[in-house]
Amino acid sequence: MATDIRTSSLTKPMDVADYLFKRLQQVGVQSIHGVPGDYNLVALDYVEKNGLNWVGNVNELNASYAADGYARLKGLSALVTTFGVGELSALNGIAGAYAEYVPVVHIVGTPSTLSQKNGMLLHHTLGNGDFNVFTNMSANISCVVSRLNDPSDAAELIDHAIRECYIQSRPAYITLPSDMVEKKVEGNRLDTPLDFSPKKNDPDQEDYAVSAILNHLTKAKNPIILVDACAIRHRALSETHELVVASGLPTYVAPMGKGAVDETLPNYCGVYAGSGSHDSVKEAVEAADLILSIGAIKSDFNTAGFTYRTSQLASIDFHSSSVKVKYSEYNGLRMNEVLTKVTNHIKQNPLASSTRAKPQLVSKPSDSDDQTESQVITHSWLWPHFTSWVREDDVIVTETGTSGYGIWEVKFQRSTTAISQILWGSIGYATGSAQGAALAAKEQNAEQQRHRRTILFTGDGSFQLTAQEVSTMIRQKLNPIIFVICNEGYTIERFIHGMKAGYNDVGEWHYKDLVSAFGAQGGTYLTYQIKTKDQLRKLLVDKEFAEASKLRFVELYMPKEDAPTALQMTAEASAKNNAKAE
Amino acid sequence: MATDIRTSSLTKPMDVADYLFKRLQQVGVQSIHGVPGDYNLVALDYVEKNGLNWVGNVNELNASYAADGYARLKGLSALVTTFGVGELSALNGIAGAYAEYVPVVHIVGTPSTLSQKNGMLLHHTLGNGDFNVFTNMSANISCVVSRLNDPSDAAELIDHAIRECYIQSRPAYITLPSDMVEKKVEGNRLDTPLDFSPKKNDPDQEDYAVSAILNHLTKAKNPIILVDACAIRHRALSETHELVVASGLPTYVAPMGKGAVDETLPNYCGVYAGSGSHDSVKEAVEAADLILSIGAIKSDFNTAGFTYRTSQLASIDFHSSSVKVKYSEYNGLRMNEVLTKVTNHIKQNPLASSTRAKPQLVSKPSDSDDQTESQVITHSWLWPHFTSWVREDDVIVTETGTSGYGIWEVKFQRSTTAISQILWGSIGYATGSAQGAALAAKEQNAEQQRHRRTILFTGDGSFQLTAQEVSTMIRQKLNPIIFVICNEGYTIERFIHGMKAGYNDVGEWHYKDLVSAFGAQGGTYLTYQIKTKDQLRKLLVDKEFAEASKLRFVELYMPKEDAPTALQMTAEASAKNNAKAE
Repeated sequence: MATDIRTSSLTKPMDVADYLFKRLQQVGVQSIHGVPGDYNLVALDYVEKNGLNWVGNVNELNASYAADGYARLKGLSALVTTFGVGELSALNGIAGAYAEYVPVVHIVGTPSTLSQKNGMLLHHTLGNGDFNVFTNMSANISCVVSRLNDPSDAAELIDHAIRECYIQSRPAYITLPSDMVEKKVEGNRLDTPLDFSPKKNDPDQEDYAVSAILNHLTKAKNPIILVDACAIRHRALSETHELVVASGLPTYVAPMGKGAVDETLPNYCGVYAGSGSHDSVKEAVEAADLILSIGAIKSDFNTAGFTYRTSQLASIDFHSSSVKVKYSEYNGLRMNEVLTKVTNHIKQNPLASSTRAKPQLVSKPSDSDDQTESQVITHSWLWPHFTSWVREDDVIVTETGTSGYGIWEVKFQRSTTAISQILWGSIGYATGSAQGAALAAKEQNAEQQRHRRTILFTGDGSFQLTAQEVSTMIRQKLNPIIFVICNEGYTIERFIHGMKAGYNDVGEWHYKDLVSAFGAQGGTYLTYQIKTKDQLRKLLVDKEFAEASKLRFVELYMPKEDAPTALQMTAEASAKNNAKAE
Repeated sequence: MATDIRTSSLTKPMDVADYLFKRLQQVGVQSIHGVPGDYNLVALDYVEKNGLNWVGNVNELNASYAADGYARLKGLSALVTTFGVGELSALNGIAGAYAEYVPVVHIVGTPSTLSQKNGMLLHHTLGNGDFNVFTNMSANISCVVSRLNDPSDAAELIDHAIRECYIQSRPAYITLPSDMVEKKVEGNRLDTPLDFSPKKNDPDQEDYAVSAILNHLTKAKNPIILVDACAIRHRALSETHELVVASGLPTYVAPMGKGAVDETLPNYCGVYAGSGSHDSVKEAVEAADLILSIGAIKSDFNTAGFTYRTSQLASIDFHSSSVKVKYSEYNGLRMNEVLTKVTNHIKQNPLASSTRAKPQLVSKPSDSDDQTESQVITHSWLWPHFTSWVREDDVIVTETGTSGYGIWEVKFQRSTTAISQILWGSIGYATGSAQGAALAAKEQNAEQQRHRRTILFTGDGSFQLTAQEVSTMIRQKLNPIIFVICNEGYTIERFIHGMKAGYNDVGEWHYKDLVSAFGAQGGTYLTYQIKTKDQLRKLLVDKEFAEASKLRFVELYMPKEDAPTALQMTAEASAKNNAKAE
């Protein structure tokens, strides 16, 4: 094809796909998740060519979960699927990223612009000539839609999508028609990095709000800090850390905020989830006369069934685009700068020492030397045992269900990243997400000389939905530690409704046999079957288990009708809510 | 709760969920597919209570594929998922059913009407209080949406959804809020069966069209019949069969019409797919001076890349709601009655005997006694060997890819049902669909004293997407015969683009080991590894393999870069089409 007039006017002509992947690389993406499909194949030629790693997931739902997990560590991720069949399979995972503020760029390879214009009766269409229907569906769960139908604005639309994805911390949706992949855009644009700086706060409004905050804070007798999901997702962790350290205030996390605070700090006091909390935590938080609430998402599962007993009159809420001081709202204010100003003031004018956190009683594992104790592993026994086993810098992925609640009982070391999908709560997520997280951790280990382990806790019912993503871990030479809790079904559902109902049972798999069936070579993995407390105690002091550069897979047998107390409370609240009528 | 005024006015009060499941049972549904989730648990209590079988699929995508397969045999199916997370995972399968005209009733358990009204921040929501977003997404791929928010119209909305689902032969979407499950509707309605009778044709228009058809047909020198998907999906198989038998005309099927015609009839002449056809078929069809085209869907994969060389001037098209005689359109006419009238006329006035089909040369497997022949199993060698192995009444499920094309070379026995998703073409479909088909066949065997086998042909890449549905087959005690073609990846994609590209490779699994890992008990299954022609020949005469009441799983090794010729042609056309720009 002759170079067209437009191309010849470009200083540094670059293929659309090159531009797209180079932009992603500039913002830290090193691996591209997804599944090939004929409308994206030509684009996939550009992945390795640009020095990126093609993950090649087993299916698109798993890929979307994995991209979510990867983004939670790396700050942004990209997922490539094919038109119709591929993209629709990813929607559940994308909706989860939307709900939980995770920046995933979803790139969909589509039929050529010409095929679309001609309304051709192609495979992967509904057969009705409508080529917009899938984009319309995705628009509901994307912060931006960019259709790359014309080279003249393709680069701008790519930049816009990645920028909004990052800033809003939500999925962006990009369509890349097969005939656009090799079209030319201006490559010089890449010399200017994308501007991810947020909109500046109005300085007067900011000062006014800070002054109101300090006014209440200095007067408070027993203020506390409560950190939640949006502190993580809207990148306010360092500002939060500064405030926690400088203030010395008793600091709690909500379940979705787990991992946001350095739990080795003397003023870290535990997980607050309303009635689902330990008694001492519940009493302390609910007795506070001021709660600095950072990035709250007060969903049912994050509050043990809406059981917060806190008052707005005793709350200051920090959000990504607003601050609320008791009932006074300051819209448009981004919390990060506000937190920093508050911290700076405290550094100059320390709070009354009486407000500082008192030393906490650490809940110890309830181990007994009694030889007659039951060897059955229960949730109340299990989780505290992991406190001494988890390490600095670990990445801990827990599934919605018993492990998502059990993890509250594990005190983390520094720099732990916790991943759990508490609001969206799609079972199967954790296994997919663990693949992406383990890959991201591997990249961080290589780049930053870290030693991050990725540890997955899931249940048998949940594992079955996305089990085959273990094969992607094997192909990508990842070495996560996987615990599958074998307790015969959907435990969280049993506690909501149908404790003994057949529909809450699952097939009895031989879970650990899957590792070799999914292609792992002998010598590259270790499997374990743990049925007693003694076996678990031994496992947790096994150096090879803790440190081997091998994939480790544990079948962990627990009773069918046992669950963490907080889960039981939340489930009961859900059941009541489901039944309630006007 | 006190009986409300409305309930007391009901003659035979019945719970909404009872009504729903009883209606489904009335139209032939005996098994309900789906996955439990807390918003549907109470409804699931009504499944077994009403004598229905709860399938309990491993995930929702698989469940939607299975429901599609089940509906293709039983006429209609039902799928239950939970709000948000569950339903979105099923969308790809539902879209496939929409594209391919398969009647699946998708029932989604949602939060209570009160929770929705109050905009509660519940799990499985986007966190924005919007409870309509997922319904809006599904509306794009459903022929009807029924929201059961009020007991006063719930029964009517259920009836409407099931009726439209059946008549339009496309998915219906029903939301069932958790607080509506036990609300009362009028049970007496069940005494009147749903009216599935189609709208009657205008008799004058019908007679006019029939006369035009007969006028052309009696003058034609070498007319033929070409049967396609909509003859199956819009239930015109018996009318088609009558015409084929009465006329004696040479009869062909399109790939999506495979299985629509009794292939043991003397005038069945093979598969026509444009340039993808055998030379003799292509010549005969394209030389016809009149094609009675029944239920055509001329999609790219159904026409080997739009390579029909037929003329509208030599065509009469029969559709579910229109007939087109050359260029004269008769809108609103349903083909079934038109076909019957044409057949009746032919019975009275037989067509010229010269138009009857000539005896066909049956293509024999190219077997050689030459001891030096290669033992490598190629597609051109493989498929004709199944002709002598398939049986009357078999259900044959093939995946989009090599098996979907290979099956063209297998001549079926009578009453064979072929399942393949040629228009939508979502890989992974076949394994899920085979579960639903095998279950439907089992029900038909029990009810009708039949001996249907279900046989799945899939490829390794495709199998990986939905592999765990084998575990549902095991739980449901189904005994399909599963062939997994092991050829190291996505073969159809290799032929479109990237023959040697890494992204078209998949992990090397030990496929047959999955059967026991997924929980099959020893003695309930057989596994095979076939790497040579001799091994395959032996397998196909093995009586236990053909007849055992056990799940049979075959790893079938074939070369990486081999594919049926028709696939190669279609892939080439796709690649050209993808690249074509204005």
